[in-house]
Amino acid sequence: MDNWIKKDLKFIWHPYTQMKDCRESPPVLIDRAEGIKLYDTRGNFYYDSISSWWCNVHGHNHPKIKKAINKQLNSLEHILFAGFTHKPAILLAEKIVSLAPKKLTKVFFSDNGSTSVEVALKMSFQYWQNTGRVKKTKFIALDYAYHGDTIGAMSVSGVDLFNKIFQPLLFSSFKVPSPYCYRCPKNKDQATCDIECISSLEKLLKEKADSICAIILEPLVLAAGGMIIYPKEYLSRAAKLAKKFNVHLILDEVATGFGRTGKMFACQYIDGIEPDFLCLSKGITAGYLPMGLTLTTDKIYKGFYADDEKRKTFYHGHTYTANPVSCSAALASLEIFEKEDTLDKVKKLVPLFYAGMERFRGLSIVGDVRYLGFIGAIELVNDRHGREIYKNGLKNNIILRPLGSIVYFFLPLCIKRNELEDILERGYSAICVKL
Amino acid sequence: MDNWIKKDLKFIWHPYTQMKDCRESPPVLIDRAEGIKLYDTRGNFYYDSISSWWCNVHGHNHPKIKKAINKQLNSLEHILFAGFTHKPAILLAEKIVSLAPKKLTKVFFSDNGSTSVEVALKMSFQYWQNTGRVKKTKFIALDYAYHGDTIGAMSVSGVDLFNKIFQPLLFSSFKVPSPYCYRCPKNKDQATCDIECISSLEKLLKEKADSICAIILEPLVLAAGGMIIYPKEYLSRAAKLAKKFNVHLILDEVATGFGRTGKMFACQYIDGIEPDFLCLSKGITAGYLPMGLTLTTDKIYKGFYADDEKRKTFYHGHTYTANPVSCSAALASLEIFEKEDTLDKVKKLVPLFYAGMERFRGLSIVGDVRYLGFIGAIELVNDRHGREIYKNGLKNNIILRPLGSIVYFFLPLCIKRNELEDILERGYSAICVKL
Repeated sequence: MDNWIKKDLKFIWHPYTQMKDCRESPPVLIDRAEGIKLYDTRGNFYYDSISSWWCNVHGHNHPKIKKAINKQLNSLEHILFAGFTHKPAILLAEKIVSLAPKKLTKVFFSDNGSTSVEVALKMSFQYWQNTGRVKKTKFIALDYAYHGDTIGAMSVSGVDLFNKIFQPLLFSSFKVPSPYCYRCPKNKDQATCDIECISSLEKLLKEKADSICAIILEPLVLAAGGMIIYPKEYLSRAAKLAKKFNVHLILDEVATGFGRTGKMFACQYIDGIEPDFLCLSKGITAGYLPMGLTLTTDKIYKGFYADDEKRKTFYHGHTYTANPVSCSAALASLEIFEKEDTLDKVKKLVPLFYAGMERFRGLSIVGDVRYLGFIGAIELVNDRHGREIYKNGLKNNIILRPLGSIVYFFLPLCIKRNELEDILERGYSAICVKL
Repeated sequence: MDNWIKKDLKFIWHPYTQMKDCRESPPVLIDRAEGIKLYDTRGNFYYDSISSWWCNVHGHNHPKIKKAINKQLNSLEHILFAGFTHKPAILLAEKIVSLAPKKLTKVFFSDNGSTSVEVALKMSFQYWQNTGRVKKTKFIALDYAYHGDTIGAMSVSGVDLFNKIFQPLLFSSFKVPSPYCYRCPKNKDQATCDIECISSLEKLLKEKADSICAIILEPLVLAAGGMIIYPKEYLSRAAKLAKKFNVHLILDEVATGFGRTGKMFACQYIDGIEPDFLCLSKGITAGYLPMGLTLTTDKIYKGFYADDEKRKTFYHGHTYTANPVSCSAALASLEIFEKEDTLDKVKKLVPLFYAGMERFRGLSIVGDVRYLGFIGAIELVNDRHGREIYKNGLKNNIILRPLGSIVYFFLPLCIKRNELEDILERGYSAICVKL
């Protein structure tokens, strides 16, 4: 065994990994990456077909992002963000506000997706306390929802495999059935349904709205829960219900943000949507450096704006809040979106991707195929094949890391037509292995 | 008002900040930093006397750290860390293990101090579940403890100002009195006491050890709780009690790690200490980029090592886990520690710092003075002066951000003798303002 791998296994505990499996199938040692290709130390390449856990946007080793980071490092790499500020954070906040749904005008910085969600949960909770609606202490989330791995974020997540063992540490929250069309909770047919599955949410709000702070949703794609892509109408109605019953709407776009669904933010498929919170991370820095953002409204902000002795301050912060280097990477990425017409390029390739995804539907081991923008998922009829498909994917130079019985693509936005064709072809071969 | 500041106030919600105060005393716009000086856009400088929230180690704009980051950016900025690995993470894990207390042999990466603590809490909890001691579900923490701002980390923190409003979201944990000598919970005199304050911890363990996963402690310095520096004997006895009663010892060295107390890790003041978990962040990257680490033992690791179907896997991970750029900054920082004899330099300046701190003791507004390594705190007899001292500090080119009634220095390790003298002198002037 390679000495590097020996050391890896000796010293490292990998995330979301059974280390016994890891010892049997050691991790691949990556030395460099370029565009959408990762290269191991033996010279093999792997298409980054899941965008390095859904964060890479414009490809690896991008000269403009590197340049922006280098420039920032020469002036200011980091300072504390209380009592002090800096231009990269100001420019980024201004830019993000201009791109986000209107009314989201205030930006709170943190370090990852979990903390961006914790901030939204805590702000929503404290807002109601600060404004005298003290009975509002609960949250509503979806079955199959995933909002992060810290205790607060887990408390509003619905993936039992990750959470169940930690139940005694989680605060209780309401869970409602997901709009998981392939496994419809109402046994309806997607072609003719009238989003009957939203009735559980409506009923809960009718009964309990007085005790509820917020609904938290991943708009249109329940990502870690199985790349469950759901009808826009569900999101639209959920947003209306939140308004009607006076509870906040928290949208977690950690996975879906920054173009992955074809729009800058997935919620922008719904005209005029007005979330109270928007949680961002992953693609924010184009996949280069850690950063999280929580956007909120002037209304929420004003609920905390008071003389100090009134104790309405939001006491939350992380050391590396608004790290200038991460901000600069994010600014460079957003500039690339504009200068290179990134979303337009995605739009042009989406029909090819969808057609490629449809090809999987005919396979006997495939139960469902679903896609939106550059996210495409194949739900297998059972999860026995997942691991074998992963291994076969690596042999075919692509990464098909399964989520249970779901195999998926989560493509970098910079992908070229020939690369997309190649990935789809290699994916087909990898999945056909059992036939 | 400066246009940048107008935009800051329009778009940004700062951490740990009452935004109404912020509007009245706008944040200082920093443009660049060099060594231990921050420069605003008007050419004023500020000594970074609190190391940018306790993270800067070798100074700003350090050529070696910049060089390491730039080099890494040219090969691999980031990849997912499940199924894949890279040399910067392997080298960093190996290096950290060599520096940490023995038996800490496994490294789990995350993004900040809060997540490094959440990982330790979740690992400790799941370890007992995985190994059949399912009644062990509680944690013990100290009054005045601070372990982070995510819900799990807050649940084991004891600073009411930050936590109280969120009580309904926190899991319950046991709190024991802190060894806060200036406000001794047993009304003893520090010179003659026999650490009587540990009796509460001992009593609790005697009664409840069967239900307890772990004790979590900040070794020797309760930082955000008020820079409470406590006797080494307390830590030593607490560690022994943890062993005796078969509960884990989680040491949170997010603030104290990387030389700040004069040793690489504060717990190393206790010979042979064997924590089960060590949480690191802040200084790990020398204050350049976000990163968190949780170190643990082979024993804990083996509690999760099993065939996949046994469901013992630790399902936790963050997108930017083991980000190669952050790893490279950390490696460069640890190399500087060696090549520049950083800890030795600190040792030589500590007597000057302690002498400077003693000078504050005579002031009538000062109740207590305490220090360890490059951390020095002045507890005022009341907290009315904090804000004025902060403003006065800025006028005197230093940052004295108070924690309630505590004003403190938390110095970068690279500080030079003349800079230290200057900071102490300016600090004295700032604090004397009311006399």
